[in-house]
Amino acid sequence: MEFQRARRPEQVAQRRRAILDTARRLLRERPVAEISLRELSDCVGLAKSNVLRYFDSREAVFLEVLDGEWGAWLDELEGRLDGVGDPVAVASVVAASLVARPLLCELVSGMAGVLERNVSVESARGFKARAGVHSGRLAGLVRERVPGVGEAGARHFAHAVLVITAGLWPHANPTEAVARVMRELGSPGAAEVFATGLREFLVNQLAGLVARSTG
Amino acid sequence: MEFQRARRPEQVAQRRRAILDTARRLLRERPVAEISLRELSDCVGLAKSNVLRYFDSREAVFLEVLDGEWGAWLDELEGRLDGVGDPVAVASVVAASLVARPLLCELVSGMAGVLERNVSVESARGFKARAGVHSGRLAGLVRERVPGVGEAGARHFAHAVLVITAGLWPHANPTEAVARVMRELGSPGAAEVFATGLREFLVNQLAGLVARSTG
Repeated sequence: MEFQRARRPEQVAQRRRAILDTARRLLRERPVAEISLRELSDCVGLAKSNVLRYFDSREAVFLEVLDGEWGAWLDELEGRLDGVGDPVAVASVVAASLVARPLLCELVSGMAGVLERNVSVESARGFKARAGVHSGRLAGLVRERVPGVGEAGARHFAHAVLVITAGLWPHANPTEAVARVMRELGSPGAAEVFATGLREFLVNQLAGLVARSTG
Repeated sequence: MEFQRARRPEQVAQRRRAILDTARRLLRERPVAEISLRELSDCVGLAKSNVLRYFDSREAVFLEVLDGEWGAWLDELEGRLDGVGDPVAVASVVAASLVARPLLCELVSGMAGVLERNVSVESARGFKARAGVHSGRLAGLVRERVPGVGEAGARHFAHAVLVITAGLWPHANPTEAVARVMRELGSPGAAEVFATGLREFLVNQLAGLVARSTG
């Protein structure tokens, strides 16, 4: 009994890790919308009801994957921003590092419209608290390198990064019909539209904040 | 026979109008995701198969509603921008006029991620062509008032308006769980987050474009 009780938290952590690893693997193959709780459970080798002992919903699993990816991105970004000080360069590094992480972009894109729509108050509370920490960290990284942006400006920029990524990501993955029409219209490919658009919009956002703050 | 043939285009136009009007009415009550083709057909008083004689899918109906709303918004915006010349004021008017049109914001938000995902090449071609005209018109309205933005800059701004609206809109409609957590965290209400965020991000975008173009 004593032994069982002592093992439980470790077992719980192990199960949660297995579920999150499986979700991450499935997300590398296809979009969030196409991964059901049944498929996720089957791939972990647990009953649906058993997965729901560890997370309140399929959406809560994906929000936790998002939380992990967000932290990993910021760890990497901190290194990539070493010695970068010009606003255009800082925003460009932020954009390029996001383009290199399609899984993060996909989850950010589904965050407010899909993932947050089916979680308990407790899950929402935990996620929003950690999201606030991540956003604060991004704001801090930007402000250290671009002091002219100001404190409120850095927070606005961190928020804009999420909003612009979320709004632009669906354009990176058009259907064959839309992709064909875009080719007919002479538009660059979807991946390029996403990469150049994200860079352009983030650079303008940061340049605008600096111009308004100092102008 | 002669009579029937002559009436047909008019009948088709009438049916299409009835379907679009019904879709618009349903969209005033709830989000796109919650309106099925069955419900839409029932409300028009047609069989599903009959609705599909006039549009290739439920998504094609909503894209056409979007097209109409987009044009109506630009008509109104043109008047509201009369005599406005400062970049901050221009971007603020654009933002405020979008905030006053939740139906347009809802459809723009679903455009690339949902609506464009289930239409034929023909529908996609028609929609993209008209979307290009609308975006060109917005770019023109902005460039007339803020010449410093340049031609490419005005096009970037018009694209950014769509992307930022799409990315921010889901935050305007949180579930009760998320809304409660945001209140606990001392965040303003969702409607205010959307309105102030849209204004801030569009103003920064335009200010950044002007600063980069002239700086």
